[in-house]
Amino acid sequence: MARREDVTRALAEWIVGCQLVDIPESVQKEGVRSFVNWLGCAVGGASHETVDRALDGVAPFSGPQKATVLGRTERLDALHAALLNGISSHVLDYDDTHLKTIIHPAGPVASAALAVAELKDLSGQDVLHALILGIEAECRIGNSVYPDHYDRGWHITGTTGVFGAAVAVGKLLGLDAQRMTWALGIAATQSSNLREMFGTMTKSFHPGRAAQNGATAAFLAAAGFDSSESGIEGRRGFAHVLSTKQDYGQILDDLGTVWEAGLNSYKPFACGIVIHPAIDGCIQIRNEHAIRPEEVEAIELKANPFVLELTGKKEPRTGLESKFSIFHAAACALARGDGSPTAFTDEAATDPVLVDLRRRVKVETDPAVREDEVTIIVRTNGGRSVSKYVEHAIGSIHRPLSNEELDRKFLHQAALVIGEKRSRELLDMAWKLTDFRHAAEIAKASVPTPAAQPKEAAL
Amino acid sequence: MARREDVTRALAEWIVGCQLVDIPESVQKEGVRSFVNWLGCAVGGASHETVDRALDGVAPFSGPQKATVLGRTERLDALHAALLNGISSHVLDYDDTHLKTIIHPAGPVASAALAVAELKDLSGQDVLHALILGIEAECRIGNSVYPDHYDRGWHITGTTGVFGAAVAVGKLLGLDAQRMTWALGIAATQSSNLREMFGTMTKSFHPGRAAQNGATAAFLAAAGFDSSESGIEGRRGFAHVLSTKQDYGQILDDLGTVWEAGLNSYKPFACGIVIHPAIDGCIQIRNEHAIRPEEVEAIELKANPFVLELTGKKEPRTGLESKFSIFHAAACALARGDGSPTAFTDEAATDPVLVDLRRRVKVETDPAVREDEVTIIVRTNGGRSVSKYVEHAIGSIHRPLSNEELDRKFLHQAALVIGEKRSRELLDMAWKLTDFRHAAEIAKASVPTPAAQPKEAAL
Repeated sequence: MARREDVTRALAEWIVGCQLVDIPESVQKEGVRSFVNWLGCAVGGASHETVDRALDGVAPFSGPQKATVLGRTERLDALHAALLNGISSHVLDYDDTHLKTIIHPAGPVASAALAVAELKDLSGQDVLHALILGIEAECRIGNSVYPDHYDRGWHITGTTGVFGAAVAVGKLLGLDAQRMTWALGIAATQSSNLREMFGTMTKSFHPGRAAQNGATAAFLAAAGFDSSESGIEGRRGFAHVLSTKQDYGQILDDLGTVWEAGLNSYKPFACGIVIHPAIDGCIQIRNEHAIRPEEVEAIELKANPFVLELTGKKEPRTGLESKFSIFHAAACALARGDGSPTAFTDEAATDPVLVDLRRRVKVETDPAVREDEVTIIVRTNGGRSVSKYVEHAIGSIHRPLSNEELDRKFLHQAALVIGEKRSRELLDMAWKLTDFRHAAEIAKASVPTPAAQPKEAAL
Repeated sequence: MARREDVTRALAEWIVGCQLVDIPESVQKEGVRSFVNWLGCAVGGASHETVDRALDGVAPFSGPQKATVLGRTERLDALHAALLNGISSHVLDYDDTHLKTIIHPAGPVASAALAVAELKDLSGQDVLHALILGIEAECRIGNSVYPDHYDRGWHITGTTGVFGAAVAVGKLLGLDAQRMTWALGIAATQSSNLREMFGTMTKSFHPGRAAQNGATAAFLAAAGFDSSESGIEGRRGFAHVLSTKQDYGQILDDLGTVWEAGLNSYKPFACGIVIHPAIDGCIQIRNEHAIRPEEVEAIELKANPFVLELTGKKEPRTGLESKFSIFHAAACALARGDGSPTAFTDEAATDPVLVDLRRRVKVETDPAVREDEVTIIVRTNGGRSVSKYVEHAIGSIHRPLSNEELDRKFLHQAALVIGEKRSRELLDMAWKLTDFRHAAEIAKASVPTPAAQPKEAAL
């Protein structure tokens, strides 16, 4: 047994020893929900231009085409499939969130795990097991450095996702504790990704690259490629170099009894989680009161300071940029009642009605307002004023999406890419993940057929 | 023209506009010397176990085998060849050094450039041009954040090498300024690598991965994959997130008139540059005085503090670890007169004579002692004492290796891998880099033939 000070090794030993039966049923259920939500997002994002361009750039370098690019007809080697699936699952900003750290956990981990399961012909149970352990390691490592690490400018989904992917693939490859320790070290030294990239294609590159790099770390370690055995806690290791906070108790305390992987949440809206309360509230106001955009004098929000820090773009020019604009999101929610991917297209970002309305959105921030909380006042030209207090946004841990809401979210986005019928079949398979002897069957079922493809595939 | 505040874009515009004829002849000559030295190191390191294990790990994912793994018979896709050649060129710690920043410049840049030149059938002139611009960008970006960035724990060869490789490959692909700006952004967000990995295989993974990631950045940008346009200077960009110092004048001042690429130096010894003065001095003492190991009471060094910070391992167990032991290096230099790759093998690290002698090495550090300076006193049991003051170590910018010394270094290491005859032919080709219409010919000439391989290929 490793000493507690040897954080990397102690974590590796626990991962290697943990069996699927050791994982509580509630956590396994949340793991399946994470998988379902991730798969819908990956298929839903598969026809985005970002994925097209990434494929143009890297497909010429693909090795043997043993893994599926979800929601597309192309096949790639497993490492490149991990990259592409990580990109597509994140590109709509519609994925999942570990609310303590704002990590989007499944993207890097599931993208790596399913691609490697295809390569090695592993089962759905294997994938679920690897996915849960990868998410657990990823979120615990995130907890150990959050928020200082994020505040400094790191995109935590990339920086910790690489560990999650390494753990998941390392588990699928059956690494021993020595090699799992190396895999964590090789992951640590590739930990990167900057928040400066938000609003560009490179944001969704992050979970993709984390999936690919983490998987590479596991394959290298499996081949005996060694690394530091203190990749996380060493004086020049991950936690010291990328953060001013190092709380290793967050990594090792209550391992196997308290599960971060049971705390995943799923986005009801296709944008940064911090503006979900505002969208939620504006949609409620729209549903309860008939206010037309041209009547609005002001939309006043009182929100957490992160709202402006992360989504303060006043005049977004593109769909991707509009995801980082509280002004656009609130306007679109009030005018159209929409927070789904169709609310964040180039069309929506440049719609004159929304451009005009978003200029009337005013945001006041207050650290006393929690991140899932908001107060909204809408004032009309006619002197009318309606207000809405959202205590916990829909999709937060206090108001989680039900399985039925996850179904609707899955179908709404996947049908645009692979058609309604195929989406329903795929959704059914995703819920039954652990029944599959060959997880590859699920990946293959996501490929559009000529008959199944809708006429308007792209958002 | 970009504004000066737009550091990334201004740098990209300069790179795109710079022609080979704009580069002074002296800098072009240093570029060829950098290429020659890099090629010898890549071939010399090619049979190392680190390279074997990396190949085992990643070769199953290789795409079309369009590029050479230098000094080996395997071929890989260009991105994986960049990875492997970056690893082999660094694994002996025998490569080059930009002394202001301790960046080893050619590894990431030349490894990417030659592999892509093979893929695209480009000329030796193209490679030289890309190599010089890549090194220039890499070292200038390093200057802008050094030493704070390095002190924090980043392995600067990896963190800045990814920019150098992106620039070199971007130049080879003929990117316009917009796409070069994106390539720098995609490079920035992959900037990583931790000093915690020193003494393990993962240290040499760094220039390799930087080569591969930088090249990927350029291919993605070429496909229109966008990124932040302030990857270097943005509030959440490279310089702010990875360093407490940001001096953008170091990037943009005197571009095209003062050349960092003309300031490369080449290691005479196969280990970290900070212990070169000690090795140099101990070899001189050995050559001038006949002192046997068993006579030595103490070897006393007065050196720069970085010597213990970086190479303070008291009891290295492996060849790789022994490169980070001033104690081993000084003992081996005095006992064997050796600082070449054969001084840092597992055999040498565990040789009882050296293990015994290194325990008698004492190091005193003083910030007033420069990094290329040392004072050595050797005391014998018989009461004898000899001393040596090294003002500037051999290989430093004040005592550069001559072309003839570069030849000897090249042949000494390459002959162990591809044989004497083939090494001489390859060396001749390397000096004539700019004469080659097809740079690929040089890469292919590095492949060992059954006849050319020496019986003992591995160090």
